[in-house]
Amino acid sequence: MFHKLAVIGCGLMGGSFALALRAAGAVQQVSGYSLRAQSAQWAREHGIIDETADGAATAVADADLVLIAVPVGTTRTVLTELLPALSPRALVMDVGSTKRGVVAAAQAAMGDRVSQFVPAHPIAGKETGGIGQAEAALYEGRTTILTPLPSNPGESLTRAQAAWEAVGSRVVQMSPQAHDQIFAAVSHLPHLLAFSYIQGLMGQGDEALAQALAVAGPGFRDFSRIASSTSAIWRDIFNGNRDEVLAQLVQFEAALAAFKQALSEGRDEDLARLVDGASAVRSRWSA
Amino acid sequence: MFHKLAVIGCGLMGGSFALALRAAGAVQQVSGYSLRAQSAQWAREHGIIDETADGAATAVADADLVLIAVPVGTTRTVLTELLPALSPRALVMDVGSTKRGVVAAAQAAMGDRVSQFVPAHPIAGKETGGIGQAEAALYEGRTTILTPLPSNPGESLTRAQAAWEAVGSRVVQMSPQAHDQIFAAVSHLPHLLAFSYIQGLMGQGDEALAQALAVAGPGFRDFSRIASSTSAIWRDIFNGNRDEVLAQLVQFEAALAAFKQALSEGRDEDLARLVDGASAVRSRWSA
Repeated sequence: MFHKLAVIGCGLMGGSFALALRAAGAVQQVSGYSLRAQSAQWAREHGIIDETADGAATAVADADLVLIAVPVGTTRTVLTELLPALSPRALVMDVGSTKRGVVAAAQAAMGDRVSQFVPAHPIAGKETGGIGQAEAALYEGRTTILTPLPSNPGESLTRAQAAWEAVGSRVVQMSPQAHDQIFAAVSHLPHLLAFSYIQGLMGQGDEALAQALAVAGPGFRDFSRIASSTSAIWRDIFNGNRDEVLAQLVQFEAALAAFKQALSEGRDEDLARLVDGASAVRSRWSA
Repeated sequence: MFHKLAVIGCGLMGGSFALALRAAGAVQQVSGYSLRAQSAQWAREHGIIDETADGAATAVADADLVLIAVPVGTTRTVLTELLPALSPRALVMDVGSTKRGVVAAAQAAMGDRVSQFVPAHPIAGKETGGIGQAEAALYEGRTTILTPLPSNPGESLTRAQAAWEAVGSRVVQMSPQAHDQIFAAVSHLPHLLAFSYIQGLMGQGDEALAQALAVAGPGFRDFSRIASSTSAIWRDIFNGNRDEVLAQLVQFEAALAAFKQALSEGRDEDLARLVDGASAVRSRWSA
């Protein structure tokens, strides 16, 4: 399917893509570049990539597939750096969790050649990243969103879809705007709430925090799991999707105010109705 | 260890306790009563209990261990009903998620005989309850909180601890007040936030909700899992711990306001600091 894959950013997402594409027999050679040289080095030593490159431009030489797997705020720099060495026939994709900002960065960096760039967002990950967590099964059974550009040739979209399907993913297309709105709702806001929840516990002092954490159970574990993520990813996501996250926050605050009012006024019937309404929606959902 | 266990409320918690105590060889006979007769019937047909009783009083006759596993708001009614038939040597425990209200209910229902009641809260459960979900392993490796009363004889506490250890649980003691404060923080507030989050999505209309749910991933799954719970449990918990939940909500709102301000004002350094502070605390924690 592909001759040479270049992975720019050898972390959880990039490393797992390389492993999965190779396991599917869909690529012959994998080159990798990371800003942190030890990540690419580790990937090569563990057979995730075949060779380390000393820069993004070196990595993409002769590649027909390029995966940009860096924090979204770094996308423009990386694309600018690799463009002179990029084959005109190469397909370039990213894995970023926001898409309008990535599209703007790609347009700024690539100009007319942005037609080679198909923005992608695989809905997969772990709360702790890093190349040491990479695994071939990461994208298995997951959904990958493509947010095509008007200038993308149909053939590029076909190849992009084939690549994500090869790693086990189901592919859905939508506009960058729809993507950012939906992911503010189902991912970015939940992260903001989970971070805020932990900060709220921290605000009560070390002793209260320690007592709480000592007896916290499975509900706490699952609800707060995403708060383990760090600013390495989330700074750029919040920055890149600020308006949609704030819009979702307004929706949440209105719903929370209704709960708070029912709770503080002792309107238990209303509280029960709100609980059961949410419960019915969440119970019907499955990933 | 025990001769006869009476389970009042044959659901997930009561049924699992019966299964686990029997599996540990720590009880010879199990009687069960449920307001919904079909639950007790199902439990008997599946060997979870030996006999169904036609009322709480009938169930506790000759029992030396009684487990009240009903919504916390029903505790007083159940204790009042069973008291006349309760052996003076029987140990009575509950499994309720709030403890000050349960203690008040037990005092009102039992008077001096409240010394027989050792309030208990096993930190275990599933987002969907019911006797069909009961399993012997539910309490295995979990923590159970006891909130002893001043009148509990030391021997009752020893027996209570032994019972929960027999089903695989680690036992911790604290005051009812400390319990309710801590569980408002680690369980009740997260549930309120998860319910509110889903209601916030619902407020955006059916089409937006459907689009969001169609691509929601593992982060959404875990963060919102507890929103599957229903008012059958949560109405009484919010009612019984109203002031502590509201106090925790104030803490959360302050933390959320800090995030919102940093986000809306584009202070990304502050946002990163808040994210990483929460991440450090949550990453260090394990259940």
